[in-house]
Amino acid sequence: MVFPDTQQAVQLLRYPLGAPQTEDFGLTRRPVPKPDAGQVLLRTHTLSVDPYLRPLLAGRYVVPRPDLGSIVPGQGLARVVHSNHESLAVGEWVVGETGWCEYGVGDPAKLLRIDPALSPVSTALGVLGIPGLAAWAGLGTIGRPQKGETVLVSTATGAVGSVAGQLARRAGCRTVGIVGVEDKRRIALDEFGFDACVSYRSPSFVEDLRTACPDGIDVYFDNVGGEVLEEALSLLRLRARVVLCGLSSQYNQDQRPPGPNLGPVIGARARLEGLVVYDHLDRFADFQAEVAPLVRSGVLRYREDMSEGLERAPQAFVDLMHGRNRGKTLVRVGDLS
Amino acid sequence: MVFPDTQQAVQLLRYPLGAPQTEDFGLTRRPVPKPDAGQVLLRTHTLSVDPYLRPLLAGRYVVPRPDLGSIVPGQGLARVVHSNHESLAVGEWVVGETGWCEYGVGDPAKLLRIDPALSPVSTALGVLGIPGLAAWAGLGTIGRPQKGETVLVSTATGAVGSVAGQLARRAGCRTVGIVGVEDKRRIALDEFGFDACVSYRSPSFVEDLRTACPDGIDVYFDNVGGEVLEEALSLLRLRARVVLCGLSSQYNQDQRPPGPNLGPVIGARARLEGLVVYDHLDRFADFQAEVAPLVRSGVLRYREDMSEGLERAPQAFVDLMHGRNRGKTLVRVGDLS
Repeated sequence: MVFPDTQQAVQLLRYPLGAPQTEDFGLTRRPVPKPDAGQVLLRTHTLSVDPYLRPLLAGRYVVPRPDLGSIVPGQGLARVVHSNHESLAVGEWVVGETGWCEYGVGDPAKLLRIDPALSPVSTALGVLGIPGLAAWAGLGTIGRPQKGETVLVSTATGAVGSVAGQLARRAGCRTVGIVGVEDKRRIALDEFGFDACVSYRSPSFVEDLRTACPDGIDVYFDNVGGEVLEEALSLLRLRARVVLCGLSSQYNQDQRPPGPNLGPVIGARARLEGLVVYDHLDRFADFQAEVAPLVRSGVLRYREDMSEGLERAPQAFVDLMHGRNRGKTLVRVGDLS
Repeated sequence: MVFPDTQQAVQLLRYPLGAPQTEDFGLTRRPVPKPDAGQVLLRTHTLSVDPYLRPLLAGRYVVPRPDLGSIVPGQGLARVVHSNHESLAVGEWVVGETGWCEYGVGDPAKLLRIDPALSPVSTALGVLGIPGLAAWAGLGTIGRPQKGETVLVSTATGAVGSVAGQLARRAGCRTVGIVGVEDKRRIALDEFGFDACVSYRSPSFVEDLRTACPDGIDVYFDNVGGEVLEEALSLLRLRARVVLCGLSSQYNQDQRPPGPNLGPVIGARARLEGLVVYDHLDRFADFQAEVAPLVRSGVLRYREDMSEGLERAPQAFVDLMHGRNRGKTLVRVGDLS
């Protein structure tokens, strides 16, 4: 196979201040890298655009902040187009850190091999990918929902929240979702089967949440932090568990705001625990074995919000950080040609 | 035995606003109650004055707020002076909810029997009582310190903190204390064996804490909340554990202030868990079996700050809530006569 010498890429022009803007990013051309011994060359098929990119660009994530001018980091679904390693053949599908560009080199040990027969390949970036794994691992290791319990999930229609809600419901729990706008509330109820769903933007949010959780909350799967977390803590039942998975309410802020008063946590003898999904990559096969059949059979539902073309990635990210997406934010980049 | 018809008691005159004042309380005379069938009459020997009384008086504790005019609630060491229950004989020592008064009735099931041969009886209110149990249970069930780890303890010279620090050190940990004033720093280092101790009132507190915990913190035993908790979270090591035992920094405030941003908890995959000591009363015998020999042999040290006379209880409480105590705050009330 012959590859071009240069490729299209999206570079970081400036660090976002507040909510990201498309002007923070710029299209550029970069050389197509050459894989070293033991590496593979990847052609990016679909990019995953995720909320964690915002704190990452602010230096508040588990990996170092990228330099200005560098290619925007991000996970992607890709195909192997040249292989210097026996474990991966040309044409195979993988998920890994591709960045916002057409070609990249990868270390096979850091790539997840994807079986395209399992379900539509794009699900490897959402319901059957890192977001789904976060929901599955967060519930399994921290939330541990028991039959009959009430499980509250924020960003209930998001890539993580929609899976968390559905898995909790399958565990026999009453599920309550939190979203920002009315049409997402309908999606949560009608597509993802939440028993109740409230909007944090409603003036009656506090009252709505109490009404939706009349017996309190046993598990809160938190993707947002902020005032929603504060309200959720006030409703914790005895020995409740809180999965601290994300802080999207503050991702667009430059200073870390204060957090919730922890008095109710003491009163409830509750447990709050931080989840970093990458700690659970060694259980990815277990996760897929359990969840892939549910996706394939249509029992576990998912939504995708797909943009076409690498150049649309900045806009997709801006929309995501304003909550304008309606499903897992993805950007189709290309395919073998 | 003949008992008086009336007794001295301290009543609640008004709910404290901010820090408590002695004028919030008043001496009064009340009838000596008559024990029902199955109950015992108790003569209060020593009162325990504890920080939790402040949130209790604000209706922010695990028991209901007392009415104005009622006797101030509180734990005490007492002797049985009349018994309508075969399990307790006249003359026996117990700890329980006596309130701030000379005589009260008790339900044997709610009283802890104290062995006066074990150690000085007043220790049943401190190092061998509820505060000691809180330290022991908080470390044993939540903190779980491992040899070589760094354990940070706030209110390091307090009734709970001094025990937590000493038990952690016995577990092979490096212990770092936090106190408010210099002479408590000396007490923490010289009497309770902390490896380092810093003052949260020092202008260089943040820097001092980092210097004292160069490798970060594995366990934080938190009795204060507020800014100290926020700083501690920023130093958490991977999979650190935080025992949420108290919030004394806000006990004198009428509104619950915001809490710490929980971003660092996610990054550290840390766990925060609320401790309510009363959940662990069923393990009181295990606690005493382990800790009493250490107290008796002088290996585990403790300090008491004893006032003489029930009428001194309000002042002792006010001093405690300003951090002016130097040891477990106790008030001697009386004895069999």
